[in-house]
Amino acid sequence: MVKEYCGVMGAYDFDGLDVALDLYHGLYTLQHRGQESAGIVTNDYVALHPIKGPGLVNEVFTKDNLSTLKGKIGVGQVQYGSDDPNEAVLPILSRYCKGTMTLAMNGFITNYDELRSELEQRGAIFQSTSHAEMIMNMIAVARITSHSAEAALAQAVAKLKGAFSIILMSPRKLIAVRDPYGFRPLSLGKRGNRYFFASESVVFDVIKAHHVCDVRPGEIIKIDDTGITHIEEGLGKRPALCVFEHVYFARPDSVLDGNSVAQARINIGKELFKAHPAEADVVIGVPDSGLYFSLGYSYESGIPYGFGLVKNSYVGRTFIRSTDEIRTEAVSLKLNPLREVLDGKDVVIVDDSIVRGTTSANLIRLIKQGGARKVHMRIASPPFLWKCNYGTDIPDRSGLIAARMTVDQICEHIGADSLGFLPLESFERVGLNPKLHCMACFTGKYPDEK
Amino acid sequence: MVKEYCGVMGAYDFDGLDVALDLYHGLYTLQHRGQESAGIVTNDYVALHPIKGPGLVNEVFTKDNLSTLKGKIGVGQVQYGSDDPNEAVLPILSRYCKGTMTLAMNGFITNYDELRSELEQRGAIFQSTSHAEMIMNMIAVARITSHSAEAALAQAVAKLKGAFSIILMSPRKLIAVRDPYGFRPLSLGKRGNRYFFASESVVFDVIKAHHVCDVRPGEIIKIDDTGITHIEEGLGKRPALCVFEHVYFARPDSVLDGNSVAQARINIGKELFKAHPAEADVVIGVPDSGLYFSLGYSYESGIPYGFGLVKNSYVGRTFIRSTDEIRTEAVSLKLNPLREVLDGKDVVIVDDSIVRGTTSANLIRLIKQGGARKVHMRIASPPFLWKCNYGTDIPDRSGLIAARMTVDQICEHIGADSLGFLPLESFERVGLNPKLHCMACFTGKYPDEK
Amino acid sequence: MVKEYCGVMGAYDFDGLDVALDLYHGLYTLQHRGQESAGIVTNDYVALHPIKGPGLVNEVFTKDNLSTLKGKIGVGQVQYGSDDPNEAVLPILSRYCKGTMTLAMNGFITNYDELRSELEQRGAIFQSTSHAEMIMNMIAVARITSHSAEAALAQAVAKLKGAFSIILMSPRKLIAVRDPYGFRPLSLGKRGNRYFFASESVVFDVIKAHHVCDVRPGEIIKIDDTGITHIEEGLGKRPALCVFEHVYFARPDSVLDGNSVAQARINIGKELFKAHPAEADVVIGVPDSGLYFSLGYSYESGIPYGFGLVKNSYVGRTFIRSTDEIRTEAVSLKLNPLREVLDGKDVVIVDDSIVRGTTSANLIRLIKQGGARKVHMRIASPPFLWKCNYGTDIPDRSGLIAARMTVDQICEHIGADSLGFLPLESFERVGLNPKLHCMACFTGKYPDEK
Amino acid sequence: MVKEYCGVMGAYDFDGLDVALDLYHGLYTLQHRGQESAGIVTNDYVALHPIKGPGLVNEVFTKDNLSTLKGKIGVGQVQYGSDDPNEAVLPILSRYCKGTMTLAMNGFITNYDELRSELEQRGAIFQSTSHAEMIMNMIAVARITSHSAEAALAQAVAKLKGAFSIILMSPRKLIAVRDPYGFRPLSLGKRGNRYFFASESVVFDVIKAHHVCDVRPGEIIKIDDTGITHIEEGLGKRPALCVFEHVYFARPDSVLDGNSVAQARINIGKELFKAHPAEADVVIGVPDSGLYFSLGYSYESGIPYGFGLVKNSYVGRTFIRSTDEIRTEAVSLKLNPLREVLDGKDVVIVDDSIVRGTTSANLIRLIKQGGARKVHMRIASPPFLWKCNYGTDIPDRSGLIAARMTVDQICEHIGADSLGFLPLESFERVGLNPKLHCMACFTGKYPDEK
Repeated sequence: MVKEYCGVMGAYDFDGLDVALDLYHGLYTLQHRGQESAGIVTNDYVALHPIKGPGLVNEVFTKDNLSTLKGKIGVGQVQYGSDDPNEAVLPILSRYCKGTMTLAMNGFITNYDELRSELEQRGAIFQSTSHAEMIMNMIAVARITSHSAEAALAQAVAKLKGAFSIILMSPRKLIAVRDPYGFRPLSLGKRGNRYFFASESVVFDVIKAHHVCDVRPGEIIKIDDTGITHIEEGLGKRPALCVFEHVYFARPDSVLDGNSVAQARINIGKELFKAHPAEADVVIGVPDSGLYFSLGYSYESGIPYGFGLVKNSYVGRTFIRSTDEIRTEAVSLKLNPLREVLDGKDVVIVDDSIVRGTTSANLIRLIKQGGARKVHMRIASPPFLWKCNYGTDIPDRSGLIAARMTVDQICEHIGADSLGFLPLESFERVGLNPKLHCMACFTGKYPDEK
Repeated sequence: MVKEYCGVMGAYDFDGLDVALDLYHGLYTLQHRGQESAGIVTNDYVALHPIKGPGLVNEVFTKDNLSTLKGKIGVGQVQYGSDDPNEAVLPILSRYCKGTMTLAMNGFITNYDELRSELEQRGAIFQSTSHAEMIMNMIAVARITSHSAEAALAQAVAKLKGAFSIILMSPRKLIAVRDPYGFRPLSLGKRGNRYFFASESVVFDVIKAHHVCDVRPGEIIKIDDTGITHIEEGLGKRPALCVFEHVYFARPDSVLDGNSVAQARINIGKELFKAHPAEADVVIGVPDSGLYFSLGYSYESGIPYGFGLVKNSYVGRTFIRSTDEIRTEAVSLKLNPLREVLDGKDVVIVDDSIVRGTTSANLIRLIKQGGARKVHMRIASPPFLWKCNYGTDIPDRSGLIAARMTVDQICEHIGADSLGFLPLESFERVGLNPKLHCMACFTGKYPDEK
Repeated sequence: MVKEYCGVMGAYDFDGLDVALDLYHGLYTLQHRGQESAGIVTNDYVALHPIKGPGLVNEVFTKDNLSTLKGKIGVGQVQYGSDDPNEAVLPILSRYCKGTMTLAMNGFITNYDELRSELEQRGAIFQSTSHAEMIMNMIAVARITSHSAEAALAQAVAKLKGAFSIILMSPRKLIAVRDPYGFRPLSLGKRGNRYFFASESVVFDVIKAHHVCDVRPGEIIKIDDTGITHIEEGLGKRPALCVFEHVYFARPDSVLDGNSVAQARINIGKELFKAHPAEADVVIGVPDSGLYFSLGYSYESGIPYGFGLVKNSYVGRTFIRSTDEIRTEAVSLKLNPLREVLDGKDVVIVDDSIVRGTTSANLIRLIKQGGARKVHMRIASPPFLWKCNYGTDIPDRSGLIAARMTVDQICEHIGADSLGFLPLESFERVGLNPKLHCMACFTGKYPDEK
Repeated sequence: MVKEYCGVMGAYDFDGLDVALDLYHGLYTLQHRGQESAGIVTNDYVALHPIKGPGLVNEVFTKDNLSTLKGKIGVGQVQYGSDDPNEAVLPILSRYCKGTMTLAMNGFITNYDELRSELEQRGAIFQSTSHAEMIMNMIAVARITSHSAEAALAQAVAKLKGAFSIILMSPRKLIAVRDPYGFRPLSLGKRGNRYFFASESVVFDVIKAHHVCDVRPGEIIKIDDTGITHIEEGLGKRPALCVFEHVYFARPDSVLDGNSVAQARINIGKELFKAHPAEADVVIGVPDSGLYFSLGYSYESGIPYGFGLVKNSYVGRTFIRSTDEIRTEAVSLKLNPLREVLDGKDVVIVDDSIVRGTTSANLIRLIKQGGARKVHMRIASPPFLWKCNYGTDIPDRSGLIAARMTVDQICEHIGADSLGFLPLESFERVGLNPKLHCMACFTGKYPDEK
């Protein structure tokens, strides 16, 4: 399982109305991007109003506490990683020489240690290991010599390496920036006189807004009394949206930099069949991420699509088990094979990726327990060969099975009857241009390294 | 949305080992049958150990509290309805003349008022409106003149009308009974020297047990030191399993009285096409219950299956919204139409049932917002015309749209381009024999009335 | 430490106004009589409104939940003993043949087992070991043949043995009864058109009501639309208020059956000096219960009163300590000797009682650590020689040091330089007539035994 | 009511054993100095272990979470003021160029705004309005040019104005400093090879340590592997311990800079009689702070000491009342007059201070309701005429009744029959040398102003 870090949102209402409810609905919609904590901070020009804490959006916010979030400007965040006591719960608030500053951020700064050390040498202190806290320090330092918050932000961004989508709320402005390569998605939406930034476009669907544009790599967009200002500081490099957003992270109903995620997934399934056909009685997917791929595989192959694994909808983050229980029980609490579909069949199962191989081995064992005669596994991405530098959980090579084994060895290791990975070049065929996307975990070519 | 009341489970270990973990995993698997409270009571022959409370199984039980549930016998329950402060959280415990008695129960007693009044006339008091509490009182009274707990239970059952699957734990026995018509499912499973009762057979899959048999309508099964005893008191009438278990309540991976739920649903989809064909570009389902029907419809029609509605996996029981928000927002927080699939298409959508029509109207509006040209609605059950007497939320005729309108009127009311309900006789064609099932909500023929 | 069981309260407003706030303030004032759970149930003629739970009054009730407690009749309770999962949280609610019945109760039924067994033989079930639940069952049975709730209550009371003050709320009445010996206190108060029952008169002070009368032993008082009715069923025996209410349980600012608790305590201190004079430099008390005795001892002896032990005001029910810590640390977290007062002094310390002797030994060690040269211990009650049958924690003879040792042996055991207990006959001299009080724990003469 | 800000504690074990339990017991003992939040941070040389949160010491710490606090060095804090979301919960942790830094602090920095602004001009950001956070920033900046943490601390302290006792934990050191005037108390204690800093000496009593010395005004004491080092940087000015620590803040069993608090309070009571004698039948105190004064008044006057007001021991921070209730009810929930002591008597009541006069007026009304014929009020401090600059809640002159009225006018305003304040010169007579104490709230002579 690969986790990404965070979903962010911002809102600005030109009529001065409270924006908290839209932020709440938006975070609700972005919940899949971070389930460990949630927060909203609004600004009514008198004070900042923060509600933040561990838990799902539904747990952190109540009708009562939402009603205290007054203000026409606001930012929100859902987050992974806040279990670590050294990690701050975002959005993070601070006061500096020009008043308040609140930051929501999705991403990972690769030169964090170096930049932090630089700040420490100037006398800065850090109350967490949050990259957002460091960025606020950089902005504060930059602000000494800058004429505006957006200029200070630009100055900070120029020094940052890595992947980041940032939404900054200053006393009277809402400012968004996407890193120079645009690794993480970020879009601008609009409903009436109210504007929104959000990690994924599906937020706009849900709050009945429409998609205005994507924030371009390296672009800064400022919203204040004077209107919407697109600031081009020349920070942008070649676009490199994380291709795994399409494979796994994003909701299928989002459109990322112009590409429909659902469409991409279905087409990936079709490409998978072209590259690795199989003779089988049924194609099944791993709920929920694998369903679109398997439907595409079914479309292309003509092999009937079926539900072979039933998911327990109430599975939370953990369940209790004794160590002497059968190993696979955890899997079967979550997924149960459907004998009526599998028994005596040759089955194609499509999953998004293989990291260590353990999950795949469990899945295949489960499907065979359900009576399948043969299991042909298809993977909707190329083999992971390189670690991600940009904030996902894809581990370094020692943890990647494909870095140590051939496809045939992996196939045997996980107990499949055949195994096929998506060819790298298929991405281009489904519209995910390698020149516009980061595929470093498959290729080792990190966009920000020469 | 139609809610049923509760899932139950029992366990007995002939080797004297603790059964709590299996009960926990089983309740976890039955979570869809009741999400408002959960409880387990175990019995180690010294004392009863209860853990009960409001919330999901995952919230009520922790590693720490599960470890206190010692005992080789135990019962468990997931439940709706416990939000009512007058409702007891089950399983319910009591002490009576023969020691302790613990009751888990799924069902609804139609002559509750009459039986309770009878008990009150003898001096009984009631601390809740729980039907289970009343049944315990009946057993206690019956026990005065009965030679055993199972005989007292039989005596009580003989007076009860309605639908019920009961698991009773006495000081040294585990006793299950299913009502004379078998309205609610109940099965016996086994793993090694450990036996289980459970509302649905999927529990046995998950805990690696196998299905031994279904408890027959009116049958009592007792497990104690002497082994498994099937007691036939002649209580059984003609079998009448609730057909809506197959349409909606049960998990697709359960097998109820010999019929696979998933298979029944897929076949219902096929029958729907036969009865109400449509010309369309795509068939979509309403997650999660409608997916199997729509797949069946697709199989039979050859119209491609597609995902037209994306569900937010994190939707809890409630979300916050202001009254002045667009009405349909609540729907779109939960379900979002997928434009890539719907735009410009003629769409078949299959849902399980129509109660008041509001949900269907919202769904159709949503799909049209997603760009669908035409929406053909298909319903995987006949029109609801009669209220349920046996514990589901199907309201009386005044709340049922089909009792007031023709199919054409409903079609217009909900904004569909065509509408088709499953013909009643189709149930038989998918293996759901009307002589073995209750279909009173469609036919008005209540099995226990003449 | 000796614990008693519970404080109770009831309220009835003839003008139909809500009584919950008075009940809250009253329970707040009775908090010393029970700190493990609290509850209020009000009755607005439409429904019962219960708020109950574990914790202090301040923890159970909030501004929000109090505002939901509508109704002109209500009962409340603070309680010990509810940590036991078999114990019900009072007030306890039930429905029976005549509608609802809610019971608050302070006391202990000595023939509980016998009465319960009788009920069980008739088919009753019990969901707790609460004596109040059994009494409700008795009332329900009695009601079959009685013409009114108060008559049924009288019929039940006639069979009950032990100590009890009960407040019963029926659909339209508030009825109080005190056991035939009046072991536990119960009074009637009034403010305007609102009447109150309460365990201690101090409640009336706090809610600005005045004391109308004490409920007499065996008396039933009914309040309903027709007014206040004193019902004399001839149940009363000779009065036998627990003398330990004066020594320890009650608040000093209560007046019990005409005697001021504070005055009784000061006079006990005076009697203690007369019986056991000491030559000393200072008299100190054990906060908080011992302070009045020591002041009385000081008044009578002329030895200056001083604060020799400082109490930590924030001491809760438990504090955490490691087992290898110095034993007396728990004592010193709670009480710290004041060297300025104790150093080089001969000290008289007055405490309320000695049960096992452990606390006394710790206290004396503490005072000597504070520099005291000599410690003369005086006890404001005679030696405990017999267990209490009426619901206090005074253990049986095997747990009572005075049942096994002479006064000299106890003195040596606890490390005092001299030790004196209050002579039994002193109670009479301070106005606590042995003919009107229960002194069984000192004399073995249980009022309800011949 | 006058609140102070915080109690602090530190511990260092030369044998490497865990110190958390002592910190817990110490904070428990310092609870009166801060009831809104509590925290402990320990350091095991590998990581910092923080447990912090809102609530009483007993609520924040559990057996389980205390056991995770590994480490031979630790700091702890109890605190007021953390209800403000802008306020940090102390101790506050940060990382800076030399590793970690944890700060506990009791006090108030009078030039906070100026110093913070200076830091902001350098680019610092602030996540709270906590003075401790600012001090950490100052230390971090100073550390750039300092050779040690203690030198950086000294450099920061040299710029700080106001009252503060700080305990700083660096990666391997525990360093304490008291402000140059020693406004707040701070002492060093020892048990075996374990050393402690604590706000009040009573902590050492409770944890069985002994008092080594007070930290002198402006002194820095460092504890590390090399032992205990007293660092004299020449920061100390004339000592000026807050005299109100003796009157109100400190526990009576503490010894502050050599003076016993209990003794000072009793002597103040004696001085009060000398200055303002009264003819009366009884002297009573306001629990808990006024009891020592009234005992001293009784000693000197020969008028008997009595308990005239009974305090509800369970009074928490708030209780619920309706606005239309009698105003004084809140007072009587907390304090109840004891008629037996007051009725028909001339009463002397001694309280610690008068701020606005409202509390005194309520008290006197209460005592008269208890039957007192005359009420002579005596105040154990001179009239408050000036605001406190050093962190207590004593308001500015507009909120001080004595700044607007003569003693006679106040007497009439509060309804007393006579009123007497402690003469300023009496402090010296009870050993509280005006040259060694801050009495600015009475005199307007602020020690750190010329």
